[in-house]
Amino acid sequence: MMQGSEAISAELINGMKQAMRRLAASVVVATARDGDTRYAMAASACTSLSMDPPSILICVNKSASIYPILNHGKDFCINVLSGSHEAISAACSGGQKGEGRFAIGDWRDDPDTNVPYLRDAQASLVCSVDDIHHYGTHGIFIGKVKRVHLHGDVYPLVYIDGRYSSVIEAAKASA
Amino acid sequence: MMQGSEAISAELINGMKQAMRRLAASVVVATARDGDTRYAMAASACTSLSMDPPSILICVNKSASIYPILNHGKDFCINVLSGSHEAISAACSGGQKGEGRFAIGDWRDDPDTNVPYLRDAQASLVCSVDDIHHYGTHGIFIGKVKRVHLHGDVYPLVYIDGRYSSVIEAAKASA
Repeated sequence: MMQGSEAISAELINGMKQAMRRLAASVVVATARDGDTRYAMAASACTSLSMDPPSILICVNKSASIYPILNHGKDFCINVLSGSHEAISAACSGGQKGEGRFAIGDWRDDPDTNVPYLRDAQASLVCSVDDIHHYGTHGIFIGKVKRVHLHGDVYPLVYIDGRYSSVIEAAKASA
Repeated sequence: MMQGSEAISAELINGMKQAMRRLAASVVVATARDGDTRYAMAASACTSLSMDPPSILICVNKSASIYPILNHGKDFCINVLSGSHEAISAACSGGQKGEGRFAIGDWRDDPDTNVPYLRDAQASLVCSVDDIHHYGTHGIFIGKVKRVHLHGDVYPLVYIDGRYSSVIEAAKASA
């Protein structure tokens, strides 16, 4: 299957969507706080960036409610979900709005920053916004990691081909 | 397990490394060409960015041989490896150098750009460099997708907890 390289066509967009369904990614929930208001958004467009400084990046659509909070430089947290957190991902993907996204899950406040983090996430990385790069409909937020919470065995929730999965079975088989 | 938020400590770096082992990611090989010289680099720090325009990003260490090629704005390709491509990933992760990285695998040249792509990759996305953002030791390269090649069923090679895996078994189980 091929699409020509000329203008952006419906065929190219469709090919891009099909290709992205094949790019497996861990599901994370990005969280932030502005005063008494907490924000949460499930995402899969998140990756490690560098170890010096320890940093990660996340791509956020400008239409997301958490976008202006991050764009104002508020601290945030990347919570790497476990295989048992599918319902939390669903709530934070649009199933719930605002504070309702925190109705399920063991959410705590990071003691230094007050940013909410999920206590039993695979990993939670509390970050300061160190750099922002805007591109089209999205902002790329670079977080300098300030604190790491780890919990449990390695058992990430993975999004692939439009559905949730986990790599625990396959990982164990090759261990 | 927690690390303090003061200076960057060895403990924070270790926590970051442990956290990143928990962030499952598809393995891709980024390729590019400069005249007769081909470049390939396995990576997991690659994510979709936006659909308008169709775009992806990849984080590349400045020490990588492909870095200056991308930094000069040469077209590149993101090849999303399948579960059968573990040896190709190993070759392109440092097991081989230069042209030796193309010794295994069915590599072709994209007809429009001459950029090498892996014929049986899950997906290959031929991109122009649309934007570059430098951060510390790394460059973040934003590719505007010009052409998409798809191949085979959804069966990505995933890197998790320091080893290769695939999500095929788990994905089938939940289908």
